[in-house]
Amino acid sequence: MTASNYSFDQLVDLITREVMAAYPVNGATCSGCGATCEGQCAGNCPDRCRDVVQAGADRLSARLGTPRVAADLAGMIDHTLLKPDGTEQQIRTLCAEARDNHFATVCVNPAWVALSAELLRGSGVKVCTVVGFPLGATMPEVKAFETERAIAAGASEIDMVQNIGALKSKDYQLVMRDVAAVVQAAHARQASVKVIIEAALLTDEEKVESCAIAQAAGADYVKTSTGFASGGATAADVALMRAVVGPGIGVKAAGGIRSAEDAKAMIAAGATRLGASAGIKIVREATGS
Amino acid sequence: MTASNYSFDQLVDLITREVMAAYPVNGATCSGCGATCEGQCAGNCPDRCRDVVQAGADRLSARLGTPRVAADLAGMIDHTLLKPDGTEQQIRTLCAEARDNHFATVCVNPAWVALSAELLRGSGVKVCTVVGFPLGATMPEVKAFETERAIAAGASEIDMVQNIGALKSKDYQLVMRDVAAVVQAAHARQASVKVIIEAALLTDEEKVESCAIAQAAGADYVKTSTGFASGGATAADVALMRAVVGPGIGVKAAGGIRSAEDAKAMIAAGATRLGASAGIKIVREATGS
Repeated sequence: MTASNYSFDQLVDLITREVMAAYPVNGATCSGCGATCEGQCAGNCPDRCRDVVQAGADRLSARLGTPRVAADLAGMIDHTLLKPDGTEQQIRTLCAEARDNHFATVCVNPAWVALSAELLRGSGVKVCTVVGFPLGATMPEVKAFETERAIAAGASEIDMVQNIGALKSKDYQLVMRDVAAVVQAAHARQASVKVIIEAALLTDEEKVESCAIAQAAGADYVKTSTGFASGGATAADVALMRAVVGPGIGVKAAGGIRSAEDAKAMIAAGATRLGASAGIKIVREATGS
Repeated sequence: MTASNYSFDQLVDLITREVMAAYPVNGATCSGCGATCEGQCAGNCPDRCRDVVQAGADRLSARLGTPRVAADLAGMIDHTLLKPDGTEQQIRTLCAEARDNHFATVCVNPAWVALSAELLRGSGVKVCTVVGFPLGATMPEVKAFETERAIAAGASEIDMVQNIGALKSKDYQLVMRDVAAVVQAAHARQASVKVIIEAALLTDEEKVESCAIAQAAGADYVKTSTGFASGGATAADVALMRAVVGPGIGVKAAGGIRSAEDAKAMIAAGATRLGASAGIKIVREATGS
């Protein structure tokens, strides 16, 4: 039986079962606490089952290779300011810092894209913005329109939030259509798309489903978190997400990354991009400067 | 000198000075703690200066008249579910509850408007949705487009978040243009607009500026909060907002209203609409049922 014999929903189910079965934490006995993890480990057990999670991350990073952290770190960071009361002066400072430190992008709300693009012209630092953010609960055509307008204003990376409620209601067709609408709008304009799954609100099965759907819809990255939910990035989530998408697309860890140690743990688990407001501190710690 | 002799920014400044000077809390000595309030009272002093705040609210409610609370309460409530992981089943329950209890509206994310409108057809309960929510930091044309699409899907009330960063950067023209774009899109389609100022992030001066601009842009209501910031509605904020806009437009209190006592305090301070997820409990407490 080939993939074309299955409905889309059946394929999502099959991919989910396959990854959950192979995921090293699921069903393993924790050598730390002796308990058997039952599929909620990435969300619930990072403290109790730290060594099991770490072993999984180590296996993945051995397979994928670990980047030269200190040298490459700045170029992996989206220098981020997304709080609603951020001011023009704070955006100007963010852009100057990104230029000085050679960060990958600044990640700003859509209302600040035009100013950021103007400030960063010729610097090599791109402008990343957010779409349907942070709830993900608007309509596909609105997310697509926001993407078009943001790119017209100067953005070249789009971090969209998936429709979390649709995922939880098992309306995978809508989750897919939502991501595809943004991907189509972005790729037609040479911009890339990261799909924020908001891992803190999902079960491990839902994390797998999200990543499989985002990849099928053509996303360039999957991303852990908005930074506005109850939790941010964990190494266990990054490892699980990397296990689902394989080496073909990016994984962005965001939310609560405040030190070089945090950053290195995410990269070791499979992250290729980091979202942080503490980028300068992280790079200084990593380089010892 | 008439209004037409002033620039828009000068008018905003004049209105702000006028209201701040007349606001009963500002500059008064608190009979509770003896301190002199200095313009941050609505945000900082509700606990310390409770009696001063209450006196202001009492004066306003005496001027405006207090509705018959128990009888009218359900019809003042927007029955609200805005969490990003709300499911189809939860939306179905919300709509059934709104129908049974004769609430004013259900307030849902845009992705759930079509389903809610279908479920509430013929019930007299309207569908309210949110735009640029909860950060308010997207572009005016995106907020206008989201408004159009939400109304096409069945919404007749639009709760938009103002551009908070623009307000804090004193770019009043952008704050105004942002609200006006949504008002124009909504009024052309017979829908009403509430402007969320997100009071918890603002100084009292900024609260006054927001309300004056929202009213000038044609808003039908000003609204205290998204429910996603560090704080929700306070009676002092409602009283201040009512003092700015006068009796001509509505004031919606939202965020943290969990009991009939909370609801009555907001109404006494000048609120004409309440946003709450605890609407059923509030009505039961108010009617003693």
